Amino acid sequence: MNRKIRIGMVGGGKDAFIGSVHRIALRLDGYYELVAGSFSSDFENSKETGNDLGLENDRIYKTYQEMAEKESTRVDGIDVVSIVTPNHLHVPIAKIFAEKGIHIICDKPIGMSSEEAINLKKVIESKKLIFALTHNYTGYPMVRHARSLVQKGDLGSLRVIQAEYPQDWLTTKAEDSGLKQAEWRTDPNRSGAGGCIGDIGTHAYNLIRFITGLEVDEISADIHTFVEGRKVDDNAQIMLRFKGGAKGSIWSSQVAVGNENNLKIRIYGENAGIEWRQEDPNYLSYTKFGSPAQNITRGSNITSDEAKNVTRIPQGHPEGYLEGFANIYSDVYKELSAKIDRQEYDKSNNCYPTIDDGIDGMKFIENVIKSSNNNSKWIQFNSN
Amino acid sequence: MNRKIRIGMVGGGKDAFIGSVHRIALRLDGYYELVAGSFSSDFENSKETGNDLGLENDRIYKTYQEMAEKESTRVDGIDVVSIVTPNHLHVPIAKIFAEKGIHIICDKPIGMSSEEAINLKKVIESKKLIFALTHNYTGYPMVRHARSLVQKGDLGSLRVIQAEYPQDWLTTKAEDSGLKQAEWRTDPNRSGAGGCIGDIGTHAYNLIRFITGLEVDEISADIHTFVEGRKVDDNAQIMLRFKGGAKGSIWSSQVAVGNENNLKIRIYGENAGIEWRQEDPNYLSYTKFGSPAQNITRGSNITSDEAKNVTRIPQGHPEGYLEGFANIYSDVYKELSAKIDRQEYDKSNNCYPTIDDGIDGMKFIENVIKSSNNNSKWIQFNSN
Amino acid sequence: MNRKIRIGMVGGGKDAFIGSVHRIALRLDGYYELVAGSFSSDFENSKETGNDLGLENDRIYKTYQEMAEKESTRVDGIDVVSIVTPNHLHVPIAKIFAEKGIHIICDKPIGMSSEEAINLKKVIESKKLIFALTHNYTGYPMVRHARSLVQKGDLGSLRVIQAEYPQDWLTTKAEDSGLKQAEWRTDPNRSGAGGCIGDIGTHAYNLIRFITGLEVDEISADIHTFVEGRKVDDNAQIMLRFKGGAKGSIWSSQVAVGNENNLKIRIYGENAGIEWRQEDPNYLSYTKFGSPAQNITRGSNITSDEAKNVTRIPQGHPEGYLEGFANIYSDVYKELSAKIDRQEYDKSNNCYPTIDDGIDGMKFIENVIKSSNNNSKWIQFNSN
Amino acid sequence: MNRKIRIGMVGGGKDAFIGSVHRIALRLDGYYELVAGSFSSDFENSKETGNDLGLENDRIYKTYQEMAEKESTRVDGIDVVSIVTPNHLHVPIAKIFAEKGIHIICDKPIGMSSEEAINLKKVIESKKLIFALTHNYTGYPMVRHARSLVQKGDLGSLRVIQAEYPQDWLTTKAEDSGLKQAEWRTDPNRSGAGGCIGDIGTHAYNLIRFITGLEVDEISADIHTFVEGRKVDDNAQIMLRFKGGAKGSIWSSQVAVGNENNLKIRIYGENAGIEWRQEDPNYLSYTKFGSPAQNITRGSNITSDEAKNVTRIPQGHPEGYLEGFANIYSDVYKELSAKIDRQEYDKSNNCYPTIDDGIDGMKFIENVIKSSNNNSKWIQFNSN
Repeated sequence: MNRKIRIGMVGGGKDAFIGSVHRIALRLDGYYELVAGSFSSDFENSKETGNDLGLENDRIYKTYQEMAEKESTRVDGIDVVSIVTPNHLHVPIAKIFAEKGIHIICDKPIGMSSEEAINLKKVIESKKLIFALTHNYTGYPMVRHARSLVQKGDLGSLRVIQAEYPQDWLTTKAEDSGLKQAEWRTDPNRSGAGGCIGDIGTHAYNLIRFITGLEVDEISADIHTFVEGRKVDDNAQIMLRFKGGAKGSIWSSQVAVGNENNLKIRIYGENAGIEWRQEDPNYLSYTKFGSPAQNITRGSNITSDEAKNVTRIPQGHPEGYLEGFANIYSDVYKELSAKIDRQEYDKSNNCYPTIDDGIDGMKFIENVIKSSNNNSKWIQFNSN
Repeated sequence: MNRKIRIGMVGGGKDAFIGSVHRIALRLDGYYELVAGSFSSDFENSKETGNDLGLENDRIYKTYQEMAEKESTRVDGIDVVSIVTPNHLHVPIAKIFAEKGIHIICDKPIGMSSEEAINLKKVIESKKLIFALTHNYTGYPMVRHARSLVQKGDLGSLRVIQAEYPQDWLTTKAEDSGLKQAEWRTDPNRSGAGGCIGDIGTHAYNLIRFITGLEVDEISADIHTFVEGRKVDDNAQIMLRFKGGAKGSIWSSQVAVGNENNLKIRIYGENAGIEWRQEDPNYLSYTKFGSPAQNITRGSNITSDEAKNVTRIPQGHPEGYLEGFANIYSDVYKELSAKIDRQEYDKSNNCYPTIDDGIDGMKFIENVIKSSNNNSKWIQFNSN
Repeated sequence: MNRKIRIGMVGGGKDAFIGSVHRIALRLDGYYELVAGSFSSDFENSKETGNDLGLENDRIYKTYQEMAEKESTRVDGIDVVSIVTPNHLHVPIAKIFAEKGIHIICDKPIGMSSEEAINLKKVIESKKLIFALTHNYTGYPMVRHARSLVQKGDLGSLRVIQAEYPQDWLTTKAEDSGLKQAEWRTDPNRSGAGGCIGDIGTHAYNLIRFITGLEVDEISADIHTFVEGRKVDDNAQIMLRFKGGAKGSIWSSQVAVGNENNLKIRIYGENAGIEWRQEDPNYLSYTKFGSPAQNITRGSNITSDEAKNVTRIPQGHPEGYLEGFANIYSDVYKELSAKIDRQEYDKSNNCYPTIDDGIDGMKFIENVIKSSNNNSKWIQFNSN
Repeated sequence: MNRKIRIGMVGGGKDAFIGSVHRIALRLDGYYELVAGSFSSDFENSKETGNDLGLENDRIYKTYQEMAEKESTRVDGIDVVSIVTPNHLHVPIAKIFAEKGIHIICDKPIGMSSEEAINLKKVIESKKLIFALTHNYTGYPMVRHARSLVQKGDLGSLRVIQAEYPQDWLTTKAEDSGLKQAEWRTDPNRSGAGGCIGDIGTHAYNLIRFITGLEVDEISADIHTFVEGRKVDDNAQIMLRFKGGAKGSIWSSQVAVGNENNLKIRIYGENAGIEWRQEDPNYLSYTKFGSPAQNITRGSNITSDEAKNVTRIPQGHPEGYLEGFANIYSDVYKELSAKIDRQEYDKSNNCYPTIDDGIDGMKFIENVIKSSNNNSKWIQFNSN
């Protein structure tokens, strides 16, 4: 392709955390050019943001509806839109851009219910669009190496999967202190029915699915709100039974003092076990039964092609969260540029999370809540 | 006291792991003298063991019954017996010695059922005996420091407690390979109905109780046997609801490849969180909400008296499992020597696990199995 | 500023490691636009590289001389050039661009001798140009926090500084295996007289200087070449005496099996000690004498403004090498954009390494070699 | 052997740190019986200590001279004496007991000069006595495993050895605060000319010699006293050239805030590298060039016989400092009991440090001081 992908953004105005992450991610490898945006419902904020980013004035839009309308008719209109608003707007926005034939990169979770996600899927499919969901932890090279170890059978038949994502930033009632991040993430009208299970539990769930490929058969959950007056859960204990017989658990919490973003996954098979931790992401601990634990480093020779493909710099020079995030954007770039150039493209190499992962994540939240509301009764995962 | 405590041992013949641990523990601080034993049902083994230990020939006994009988009538008979046999013999042996007025130190778990433990308690109480159960992890100085932090209120009201004890030594069917440890520990007739929940899950449960003082209100469990043909569970997922509103979980496994004795406990309160790991036991991670994590080291000035009392050497010189084990013995020594000397003794300083902890551990196993047999239904902990 | 800084690059063709690092660094925050380049002495390589990067054909140059000539006369010519060639070309290239009034960002070490660096400085000064040297480790937020702790006096008077930078990639004679990186870095004609002391020892030295501000008074060194036939040192033991009385050492090695890029610095003062490690760069260990070690995390509230200024994402989401590198570029951007806009600029906030650091690094290499050649005699640092 | 070894102790009265360590070490495996002592120059202290330890009154001696005299004439006299006084008394005491034919276990360093140590050796040899020096770190199982890896050639020809032993307990002038440990250890009349180099530097040096077997060819040192008024060094930078061409360094410090007993050794050969740290002693990091780092655990199957011989409990249950110390005592026991029983004994398995290690340690201290006094001139190690 002779040009960069033209991308627009909805959401991500001043003070939005995840918007600036997406912008760094799209810049990192030089594949995208941000040319349009509707960054905030407050147009002043949006204009200021757009100006700081060097956008043309006529491509900073008052509403995303206007943006979809106008960009879809320009010759040099955006190829793809990045949606980084609070959760309740994801699907409505996505739908409008999809109907205009614009591809979509959307922050997670996909929306408010599996139902609206399934409806969105119909539009995406009918328009033959790319839809990528930024479950960004799947972009870490050592996560991809973990997946390839499982796929190659190095672990043997899987038995136990333990995932956890504890944080502590909602230990006190931060939503009352003027912290915007806390406000919308604890407001069920904007974040959805799930609190910590939607915000971070879905990441843990998605990571299990991504690495192991296992499907959950039944789920039992006990979710709770520790901070008085909070409207959503801030701690979740979840037990899992996988199809094929493996067992597991997810613990996610936003009141676990001393944890920043301590996402961790451990996978045990008949022959080997692995462990990966987001806060130290360049390493994967791998133990063959009866042998010493090995510390496999990102960038080392023995890593799989799936890991090498998303490795920019040598071992010992740490890559982090932004690079992992950028990998999702760069994965999408490959398919998108082929599409634009009308070239053949082998989708089997795709690693980025899709709309199906989005629907799956919604079902996870719904099933967790259903089980918890039924005194932790085991719920069939697909029996909604 | 002018003399050492005279101690006898039942179990702990050649190749027994835990017997030699108990012997090191009783030697370490020089408070005990091992003078009698019935180390094995195989008298040849017992004689050889006793000879190696320098015992008089007439104090190496064919049966524990004979030992209880004769030692209780000698002027220089044993003050206390250490019981280190497989689980099914703990209570029968303890009863016989108790009836002869001999104090007891017993390996965990206490036996095969809460019922037999409750019966034993009656004898212990009527004879006014000391009964100590070697839940040895409670002996680690930093565990005691953790307890004192909770008791002092440094963590505030407790919210979440996550405990886990994964191992990997039963990943394959070791019980068929001639490994004695594996044989009896997977034989329900000798170890009890619980496999990994009895062998190590009880340690995790006991540690929660010891540090937090919290009582479990309800328990929900999903236990499983991964290794074909094994007669007991080798993996357990357990959710906990504590009285007062805290939540938690226990995961214990003996098929988690890469884990040796990876007992870990994390406790989160309103104001602070702590984390301790058995494989790195000289450190306690402590985080006050909003402040950097502190690495508190055993032996440092800021540790509590409860920790200092069981600290032998300065910070930076690691103590380990054997020292922790010895602390239980040395705790018992203090009360026992006072008793023998008919001196006043303030029991409030006692830290060693008692018969009540033994009964509690049995109930834990029984409730876990009951819940798991009822598709993980929440079970009232004291409703047996 | 209403436009991005226009940047050109010399060096960084296909397979060059550091060139692509610089390109990611300049993209990350969106401040620069790469518009011109002479990426290789092989013009085909250069053209291919430039095309992949989306450059206009007429701005991909055959020689850097032509590039300096033409870019300096275009209205939309480059503001700054990034020099990422082997070391021997740094100063010659820099001079030509400097003479055309183009600002410079240059990879380290600055060149082949302090003499040529001093000569370059004259040109830079006479033209009032910005010259930034990418000692990139100074860009890590926690390195900046370390510096601010020292400056604020939290450590008290400094006593001991231990720095080390071990690698293992030159354990065997990689320069004979076709590995380009190894070829030029072990060729004294291209890398300079220093092998591992120039390639990585200078980083350790620069980091000491950056964080502590201390000047070296005397230096004693024992450098050695372990791999037979290698033309430069691959291991260096260095002792340091600082002005003011502090002592220290630097160990750098490229044959230390098991070390990837294990740069580490420890600084001990009268009141406190700190430790930072490049492979785990989001954390700074800080110990006040008599208190527990604290683990200070990048992004946390207590970090200094100097650290916060170069922090993009919250604690617990790791940033790494590329972000640190980008911080140098973004530091330069601030001064450069002010210069272009003819605005006031407070240089006191500048953190990026300058030409003086380049000269200082050359003296370090020269003094190390001089001492080592004189059987480790102590050499006065400024007595060249 | 049918009886325990009878051991006496000189030094180790109330408040002495190392005396109680030796007593725990001799008790741990049940091979020794402490029956006599002269624990302090203050006879009241000595009596109290002896009584607490349950000694017969007539075997608590006023002076070590009397003790040597009387014990050597008793039928049940001590077989071996443990000397745990300040350094200046080691050799005088050892000589008196040696002349009476009593074996010796002596704390390190051996004394005040290589000359007195050489003189002592003559007596030891003429009397055919065992003399063990408690360089206790050689007793750690993973140190023994490290030695066996080097001996088996797994590392290939050795290149670089980095050892360090930083502490922080003398950061302030603790010797003026009434702390006995600090008083005598900083008093050259009692500790010898070396301060931190004698107290802990010798441990680092001894550990290098023990694991690698390499001899030092030349040594260059820069020692310093940071705390005003202190009479001995509290920081030492040392460079090493080994016979055969390897290079290395030792850093020891007692003013490095944040370090407790952070002894660490790293050894790099042509084929592999290893790393061991005293504060986490149950693990040895081992990296074959080009392969992932392995974490070898004490007690695991792959450890060498040398390690297994001194391993009491399974992997994952940490052993520590006291167990390592006890291993020296138990090593001595094996040879001593064979000697007493007049049995054959294969000395080639001995691992405990001998009088030659003591002499070597004295030469280390003397050479370090000599080099430092000569502005870090390289000193031939054996050219005294």
